[in-house]
Amino acid sequence: MTLELGGSEPQNPKLRGGTVRRYRATVEYDGTDFHGFQRQAQGERTVQETLEAALWAVTGQAVTVMGAGRTDTGVHARGQVIAFDSDWRHGEAALGRAMNANLMRDVAVKEVESVEPGFHPRFSACRRTYQYTVYNRFCRSPLLRRTSWHRRRPLVMTAMSAAGGLLVGEHDFATFGKPPTGENTVRRVFCAEWRQNGGFMEFRIEANAFLNRMARSLVGTMCQVGAGEWSVERFAVAFAAADRGQAGPTAPPQGLCLLSVGYPS
Amino acid sequence: MTLELGGSEPQNPKLRGGTVRRYRATVEYDGTDFHGFQRQAQGERTVQETLEAALWAVTGQAVTVMGAGRTDTGVHARGQVIAFDSDWRHGEAALGRAMNANLMRDVAVKEVESVEPGFHPRFSACRRTYQYTVYNRFCRSPLLRRTSWHRRRPLVMTAMSAAGGLLVGEHDFATFGKPPTGENTVRRVFCAEWRQNGGFMEFRIEANAFLNRMARSLVGTMCQVGAGEWSVERFAVAFAAADRGQAGPTAPPQGLCLLSVGYPS
Repeated sequence: MTLELGGSEPQNPKLRGGTVRRYRATVEYDGTDFHGFQRQAQGERTVQETLEAALWAVTGQAVTVMGAGRTDTGVHARGQVIAFDSDWRHGEAALGRAMNANLMRDVAVKEVESVEPGFHPRFSACRRTYQYTVYNRFCRSPLLRRTSWHRRRPLVMTAMSAAGGLLVGEHDFATFGKPPTGENTVRRVFCAEWRQNGGFMEFRIEANAFLNRMARSLVGTMCQVGAGEWSVERFAVAFAAADRGQAGPTAPPQGLCLLSVGYPS
Repeated sequence: MTLELGGSEPQNPKLRGGTVRRYRATVEYDGTDFHGFQRQAQGERTVQETLEAALWAVTGQAVTVMGAGRTDTGVHARGQVIAFDSDWRHGEAALGRAMNANLMRDVAVKEVESVEPGFHPRFSACRRTYQYTVYNRFCRSPLLRRTSWHRRRPLVMTAMSAAGGLLVGEHDFATFGKPPTGENTVRRVFCAEWRQNGGFMEFRIEANAFLNRMARSLVGTMCQVGAGEWSVERFAVAFAAADRGQAGPTAPPQGLCLLSVGYPS
């Protein structure tokens, strides 16, 4: 599908004279063929740029899309939250349908609603939930390769759960990621849990916010514990050190999915 | 990954003088980027041709791969069974590893064993199990688009289960598919069951054999029943008519997966 953007310059919604509203939308995407959420300088295909192109096609306006989480290249989302301003006059459901008609099959708008003008998907958010899926068997799986991490060596769930239990509460997570400029490395984890789901091992973590690469660094390091390469004690020592150099390997992006973003009700 | 086949002509295993054995292998593939299992005259990418190219690279022999089920373009398999002859001398596990090292990421050999020379994956088989996955919600799903059929309108599981229940036993399935040349249209269905699995509706069907397109034609027609377009009675009448013209629409391939093939023990 090619967006027929035409040759005319898009208009800024604030200059058209209609009532400008802020919209919030929930977005699902298969991150495999995106260079992450955030627009890149060099014009790589990103989720943000794709959504902005769809809004341009639908509204004729150059709309800036704000996102709750800057997912990395290859990371998926079932519940990314975005916001943007528009003087669209045809209702929220019609806006969602029109956007979906202008999006490729690997990204979709699940829900659109109008919100108060001060709403910001990132700064207003109070919790994010991520899930990481590990597939633990000898042979790799063609059907699961896009959405899970294949680990050949047996992983011991009880050891990984013991490591995961240490994460809950307010801690300095400097070992597991870098903060955005100007922020500290303390985060509050509400819940961090491994569970077996059929052939999968799923790690679900809910926190007020995440450092860059934090979920994947945690999973990669916990898998060292599960594989018997690290003891739970070594994990605890590395965590307490608050030193990025002490983390284990970072798990690959395709196993990670942003499930949901929460806001104060 | 490019297979380095070199310029030399492959040898027929029977001419090399070693002990030729018949091997059986279980194969998983993501059917999205294959033009079905069976080798095509025009050199399209197929599972059979891909496996034969890997065996050529591994053994230096022109090996013909036989398959249990000729899955259509876009249909997946978790348990396709293949067989081939080779004078490979390094054991079954090493043969599986060597094949996987020469296969793209969307196909993998899960298990290899040597079998008696008369074994044929298709003619020796006594049962096949397929699963079809339907995703029933308003919005399409980017993450599920490659492995399920999105149905926007609500489907009633009880009606679909009533239709599915009619299939069990030995019946003429001419309404739902065409037989291979020279075969009749009677098949024995051992089990046909719809179940809800989270957001999915999964249909699992086990039969001695299937007509061409039979599983997808059954699912497409049962979904007419689930959507309220057809009554269960109309489904029963169309089934009893044994007339291909009476079937409902055929469900798309990406929801279908060949789970396993059974042999007399």
